[in-house]
Amino acid sequence: MSDPIEPACPLAPGAAGACPPQPLADVAVQRWHSGGGAPQFYASYVAAEVPVALVFNGISHAVMMATPQDLEAFAVGFALSEGIVEQPQECRDLEVTLHGLGTPDASCAVHMEISPRQFARLKDRRRTLAGRTGCGVCGIDSLQALDLHPAPLAAPAWREQLDAARILRPFGALAARQTLNVQVGSLHAAGWATPEGELTDVLEDVGRHNALDKLFGRLALAGRLGEPGFVIMTSRTSYELVRKCARLGVPAFATISAPTALALQLAQEAGMHLWAMCRPPTALRYA
Amino acid sequence: MSDPIEPACPLAPGAAGACPPQPLADVAVQRWHSGGGAPQFYASYVAAEVPVALVFNGISHAVMMATPQDLEAFAVGFALSEGIVEQPQECRDLEVTLHGLGTPDASCAVHMEISPRQFARLKDRRRTLAGRTGCGVCGIDSLQALDLHPAPLAAPAWREQLDAARILRPFGALAARQTLNVQVGSLHAAGWATPEGELTDVLEDVGRHNALDKLFGRLALAGRLGEPGFVIMTSRTSYELVRKCARLGVPAFATISAPTALALQLAQEAGMHLWAMCRPPTALRYA
Repeated sequence: MSDPIEPACPLAPGAAGACPPQPLADVAVQRWHSGGGAPQFYASYVAAEVPVALVFNGISHAVMMATPQDLEAFAVGFALSEGIVEQPQECRDLEVTLHGLGTPDASCAVHMEISPRQFARLKDRRRTLAGRTGCGVCGIDSLQALDLHPAPLAAPAWREQLDAARILRPFGALAARQTLNVQVGSLHAAGWATPEGELTDVLEDVGRHNALDKLFGRLALAGRLGEPGFVIMTSRTSYELVRKCARLGVPAFATISAPTALALQLAQEAGMHLWAMCRPPTALRYA
Repeated sequence: MSDPIEPACPLAPGAAGACPPQPLADVAVQRWHSGGGAPQFYASYVAAEVPVALVFNGISHAVMMATPQDLEAFAVGFALSEGIVEQPQECRDLEVTLHGLGTPDASCAVHMEISPRQFARLKDRRRTLAGRTGCGVCGIDSLQALDLHPAPLAAPAWREQLDAARILRPFGALAARQTLNVQVGSLHAAGWATPEGELTDVLEDVGRHNALDKLFGRLALAGRLGEPGFVIMTSRTSYELVRKCARLGVPAFATISAPTALALQLAQEAGMHLWAMCRPPTALRYA
């Protein structure tokens, strides 16, 4: 299992050689002022956004634009939250490969072997979509294929103890754990919190869906899926995030920004508790 | 050509009948305080997020989750910015249809007829993807299919006059024009500004790519594509937004948040001027 991020590697996305893609890239910036005057020049960082191919049993299934960090976790979380596999153990022989490093076409691929049963199901799903191209909703090109009806979730007893204090506590701890975002300001974060509101894990990505998949993959690789706790995110609550959480059995989901109407509808159907606009000292709960 | 939004229609997304989907939905909210005490109950709005199928010559090409407003403009802009057609006139017989209204499975479709030449090219592209499913990047499932090398843009003389004052002026006028977002706080906006920084058009959507496509469609339907001016957005600058702007020949692009490294790379290759972190009184320009 290779690690795509070598901490010893300098921040040099254009450098040639075997250096893996970095999550940040250094750039030259001009700061202009509306009052006029010459711009100031300085060096800064921006978030990397690298094509990452997800390859199952040798066949490329999807290409996501992602922050090149925690890529094994990303692939495992994606496979679980998109229903390609049902158990983390079905993701075998994980391997990250890097292509075109030192060129403008740098990219990554995460390879995994899934069980014969799951691969057969994935092939069936692909056959169903034969001759079509999907856009927007993952691989979906017709309304009939949308999956808007999640199964009902279990309702754990600890969830009834969640109040604003427990929900907001991990948000208070979040910024200090967003180690990439503090340098670039354009990354989303997904975090896992215990029922008491202790923030245990934070994963970052340019894409909010990717950040959530990385979080699920992190938990899955550590054997911690199904632990009591809830998910927090820096984004708004879109329907895709609720759908992914419902697939993984997450009973409560809290975000900094607002939900969409469809996200509320899915959460209601799944019996998921939704908290939003989580900005201390208040949080909104949607009935 | 039908109008998906009837201003006279009440905000009632669950109401039965022929009422079209509304861009906002009313919800019951509980406001909790971390200091404890009983939550306050009140009524509020959230953004609608409705599946919208884009149907070319009777064949569904993609399903996007979008705000159900300006859907003709959305479809025309999508067709242009994704390279399905090259000229707005190639989008013919636009029609918006509504399905399952009054149910949790409400959805929209935008139908259009495109020229025989463009439809043949779309069919070819779909054939290339036969038997595959795409996810993340529109319809793309392998790294080879990524289009990361835009053609160089023309460099209009007016662009050299853009400074922080002209770039920031439309941002100062933007909030007052985000008529949906002011009620829900979770919608992106794309705006068009003249070389002098006058904000002429603002389109909103739950998705930033959709908001940009709606803006392009609005300009296209009014015969204004190619007008001198630049695009502003409330989001960060992702590579997809730069790619869409490059396809439409937009020479300058300005956003409230930061760009990604790949967005900078594409902009550089296209010769597009990128401004970001546009928060009066300063704006950053990336070299």
